[in-house]
Amino acid sequence: MKSSLLALAALSFAFPAAAQSSGTREAAPRTPAEHAADAAKNDTLAWDFVDGITTEIGPRQPGTEAEARARAWAIRWLEAHRFANVAQEPFDMPTWVRGDETAETIAPFAQPLAITALGNTASTGPAGITAEVVHFPSYAALEAAAPGSLAGKIAFISHDMRPTQDGSGYGFAGPARWTGPGLAASKGAIATVIRSIGTENHRTPHTGTTTFPEGVTPTPAGALSNPDADNLERMFARAGQRPITMRLVLTPRWLGTTKSGNVVGEIVGRNRSLPPVLLACHIDSWDLGTGAIDDGAGCGIIAAAAKRVQAMGRPLRTIRVLFAGAEETGLWGSRAYSAAHLAEPFYVGIESDFGADRIWRLDTNFTASDPALYRELAAAVAPFGVAPSREVATGGADLNVVRDQNGALIDLQQDGTRYFDLHHTPDDTLDKIDPAQLRQNVAVWAAVVNVLANRAEPIRRTSEAEPGNR
Amino acid sequence: MKSSLLALAALSFAFPAAAQSSGTREAAPRTPAEHAADAAKNDTLAWDFVDGITTEIGPRQPGTEAEARARAWAIRWLEAHRFANVAQEPFDMPTWVRGDETAETIAPFAQPLAITALGNTASTGPAGITAEVVHFPSYAALEAAAPGSLAGKIAFISHDMRPTQDGSGYGFAGPARWTGPGLAASKGAIATVIRSIGTENHRTPHTGTTTFPEGVTPTPAGALSNPDADNLERMFARAGQRPITMRLVLTPRWLGTTKSGNVVGEIVGRNRSLPPVLLACHIDSWDLGTGAIDDGAGCGIIAAAAKRVQAMGRPLRTIRVLFAGAEETGLWGSRAYSAAHLAEPFYVGIESDFGADRIWRLDTNFTASDPALYRELAAAVAPFGVAPSREVATGGADLNVVRDQNGALIDLQQDGTRYFDLHHTPDDTLDKIDPAQLRQNVAVWAAVVNVLANRAEPIRRTSEAEPGNR
Repeated sequence: MKSSLLALAALSFAFPAAAQSSGTREAAPRTPAEHAADAAKNDTLAWDFVDGITTEIGPRQPGTEAEARARAWAIRWLEAHRFANVAQEPFDMPTWVRGDETAETIAPFAQPLAITALGNTASTGPAGITAEVVHFPSYAALEAAAPGSLAGKIAFISHDMRPTQDGSGYGFAGPARWTGPGLAASKGAIATVIRSIGTENHRTPHTGTTTFPEGVTPTPAGALSNPDADNLERMFARAGQRPITMRLVLTPRWLGTTKSGNVVGEIVGRNRSLPPVLLACHIDSWDLGTGAIDDGAGCGIIAAAAKRVQAMGRPLRTIRVLFAGAEETGLWGSRAYSAAHLAEPFYVGIESDFGADRIWRLDTNFTASDPALYRELAAAVAPFGVAPSREVATGGADLNVVRDQNGALIDLQQDGTRYFDLHHTPDDTLDKIDPAQLRQNVAVWAAVVNVLANRAEPIRRTSEAEPGNR
Repeated sequence: MKSSLLALAALSFAFPAAAQSSGTREAAPRTPAEHAADAAKNDTLAWDFVDGITTEIGPRQPGTEAEARARAWAIRWLEAHRFANVAQEPFDMPTWVRGDETAETIAPFAQPLAITALGNTASTGPAGITAEVVHFPSYAALEAAAPGSLAGKIAFISHDMRPTQDGSGYGFAGPARWTGPGLAASKGAIATVIRSIGTENHRTPHTGTTTFPEGVTPTPAGALSNPDADNLERMFARAGQRPITMRLVLTPRWLGTTKSGNVVGEIVGRNRSLPPVLLACHIDSWDLGTGAIDDGAGCGIIAAAAKRVQAMGRPLRTIRVLFAGAEETGLWGSRAYSAAHLAEPFYVGIESDFGADRIWRLDTNFTASDPALYRELAAAVAPFGVAPSREVATGGADLNVVRDQNGALIDLQQDGTRYFDLHHTPDDTLDKIDPAQLRQNVAVWAAVVNVLANRAEPIRRTSEAEPGNR
């Protein structure tokens, strides 16, 4: 064995740092490509962030005391890692919090069902409500229901979601949660239960916000886990003509106006007069899980990438990280940041908020208008298996300020195949993160941010969404 | 394509029914082998049972009203499927039920943890208890703790379980639940939290019973989900010298003596004077899930196999199915059945209670003493991928009566690799059952029961566990 190892060690001199066999002493990375490759193998900073915030804080719902603790924790972390100009930018928001939540079928088959309330919904009161359930297998079926036809009933929308790599399944299934309860209420429903907007079969329902249309009084509404929605569907199949009645107890409440805030930090560039590169994530999480993939990982990735670019040498432009507050319940932080910073020009915005699985595609909104820059970025990320595309980046939820400026945006598309297994559930925990894929994210981000932060020229943008790109 | 299909159809005449391509009309099975092969392809009866009981009843905890509904449901089902001598055999038992259950760390890191109480444990009272947590990474570490050293503390046993095909991991990890809380209490602990005895990483803690030794007052005790146990371990790693304090609210209570019962039914044989073949499962389930794999599937499998053997022609011996009550909280039904039927000789006992994944190995306790019968059974199950073995069958939990008679036992070993992902959790639901593997179980059982129920000779048994078999 010894001679084989020596042979491997000798061979490794012929390869860049990233390709060296483990167990040999690695030379310090020198070029940007070597730095990115090193991040893919050795980054521990992103993991340290997400391990820390999930362990020391855990759930951090917008507008709550837990979110305030998370901001304080993030500020300490950024300062400990020598970010400059670390600051908190507070804002006010209306805050909804969960109460008790139980569901059970009463007749003809009696059993408890796993449910969680949707954000912004009303309370049943502690006594709960009991009513007949009307089943809609799809959102379209609910749309087709006659006005007034749901008076006194509980609507059950069991629109099904399948996994997709690009997350497009969320667009297909999401309306059942986003607007389904409001639509049912507009037809008279006194409450709504939906099949979780999720792609796994665990009894961990998926929460998330819903919106009631102007003039429609909010009702109680909750998501059943997928196995419970399956069970309720089977009850309809077995009940024949017998009505299915359900009892719901959901007692969320509004706390009124509370404080939230954004957290920022910077790697200061050599030329402060140039617009900075903006890297975004969100620091809040839903209350059910510990916010590992949504979005502790994203904040860890952008912070680790910023530090890695700094390690390559002081960048030309300032890199600013924005840990937005209160994303989950209405992009409060993103909107507050845009309102406060709309007049401040940004060079480009990039967000990480789709878990921690590998980045597989590079989308921008200047692919056609600035092909030289796009080619440079595509070349930088190609070593990490990231493919070019002609899809137009639209930017993440926390990039309102750049969108409002009609600025340059990049989407480093992560593999979302299993993201909606975990999204908005108790199962959003650290163990779901694959350290190797997390490091790949840091490497890709470091490669991209290095190009951008060291580029003097403006990004050539058309004034509208690029017509030739789709 | 058409000519290919015709060619396939022509070919199919050369194969037994089981090998015919789907879409061709199949000849009715005639031989026992054809019947078993047909069950592997076409059985719907086992699925009907487990679909029905999980949908129309759901959780059915021992000694509760829900278990009584499950007995009534099972009796209707057996009668509808023309089992003879369907009866209920009631017994009394002490019944423990779950109350509120929450856990949270208070300092130095505050966050909620997912917990569920263990059966037979005491209540913290509604106000809960708050105390310092002491971490034991293994059961052995707890054993090594000095007497009195846990006075006033909460013990945390994080003994880890890994999946095993033969279920042996349960024997390694199980003591942390079975006797860990009692051991901790004997050293002064005021409460115990354990890492779930489970092999997955979902936030669905695994319940199950625990036993306190004579003279040790029961304490509150619960299981954390694996991600929560991971999180608590990380807190210890990050807390340094700071103590970790936890607040527990667990309010289970005893209902006193309540009624439970066993349910039996028969396929009556041609010679009622011969000892019957006893097929067992349990009709109760833990309260958290719907009892699909534990043990709705088992009851479906044995009932479907009995009906399949009957379809081959009236058997020589009577086949009796025993749906035991109250297995989960102490084998109350198995023990009551043995007390009532010890004087009634049984030919052989077989149980299905390890999920619904494929049977992979045939164990008996007469492999050496009656090799002719073993060879016949092994030949009957070989077409379904079931391997012979020299392991000595010990029989399932509900076969106390046969064990107490020192009778013949068969273990049709199911693949348990993913059983402890689901065992005693809310996730024990119908969607976890693979219909093809469920049918394989029915086929193997039908093949085995057909041999046994049509065999006149006694089974040759040594009087002790066979020394040459291990």
